[in-house]
Amino acid sequence: MERKGFTLWFTGLSGAGKTTLARLVEAELLSRGHNVEVLDGDIIRTNLSKGLGFSKEDRDTNIRRIGFVCNLLTRNGVVAIAAAISPYREVRDEVRRDIGSFVEVYVKCPINVLAERDVKGLYKKALAGELKNFTGVDDPYEAPVAPEVLVETDSDTAEVSAAQIIARLEELSLVSREPQASAMKK
Amino acid sequence: MERKGFTLWFTGLSGAGKTTLARLVEAELLSRGHNVEVLDGDIIRTNLSKGLGFSKEDRDTNIRRIGFVCNLLTRNGVVAIAAAISPYREVRDEVRRDIGSFVEVYVKCPINVLAERDVKGLYKKALAGELKNFTGVDDPYEAPVAPEVLVETDSDTAEVSAAQIIARLEELSLVSREPQASAMKK
Repeated sequence: MERKGFTLWFTGLSGAGKTTLARLVEAELLSRGHNVEVLDGDIIRTNLSKGLGFSKEDRDTNIRRIGFVCNLLTRNGVVAIAAAISPYREVRDEVRRDIGSFVEVYVKCPINVLAERDVKGLYKKALAGELKNFTGVDDPYEAPVAPEVLVETDSDTAEVSAAQIIARLEELSLVSREPQASAMKK
Repeated sequence: MERKGFTLWFTGLSGAGKTTLARLVEAELLSRGHNVEVLDGDIIRTNLSKGLGFSKEDRDTNIRRIGFVCNLLTRNGVVAIAAAISPYREVRDEVRRDIGSFVEVYVKCPINVLAERDVKGLYKKALAGELKNFTGVDDPYEAPVAPEVLVETDSDTAEVSAAQIIARLEELSLVSREPQASAMKK
């Protein structure tokens, strides 16, 4: 069975859990026989956007590049998973229009929780003014108005959030309910 | 039938016919049921490399970005066709190593023929010194040492060159000999 491609777009603050969730969802979709590629902020900034900074213009350019690659993958039957802060609503919506088959996942977590966890120590630096243009601190984050999925990572575990996302993809008929790989083994 | 992905990499001077050949080969492969994406210099400079110039460093960065996207497509079963001057041997070989399933097509045409045709008027400007860093004029072009395919566009028509490329892909067992789409209709 040929599977349809789509783009699964994670947006949310730094440390909210976008890449973790992307990897969990990737594993589940691979086990169901989909082709999957994860494009997270680090991968893209290394391979496609070195030299870009964190001004609005550069962030938008970065997001458009991710969108361009997601579009190429999506129209060739791949599930393209983007996991980047993507703070600006307008460019997210532009990418959505370009791609068509687009599922937005808002990974929501209050900034005080993120600042407390501060896995990479970035919030401490940003709050101390040592890191400029940090989303949520001195740079805006525009939450999605009507995302296809909303997960709340301060209250739910990553596993629960990933399951929510998969359930929504099933609901949208983008992935089949039964794991294809194990079904084929029967 | 699931088709294997590979990267078809056109290299050669500006005006030699890379994009023309890429489009002809694309049409033929689509008719045989392959998924195909053409990434030519203009598409990439617009979507992934805006802001990069024509220094060796920027050219190498541009080629690595094309290679990154070709790799994503190739490993998901797509035929990725790159058509960029890609003047430096070392970075072409780096991309080849990264991707693995890589077919290099050297689109060869003597520079005096290109300067005479001069479809875009660029050679005239470059030779007059009005355009700097122009490959073949004041910037180097390192021809492939052992390309999988060599086409000579000063002596052969685009159709003949495209047929040569397709024949080589058949020889390499990357495309099937019979057009799949029409075979299926029988």
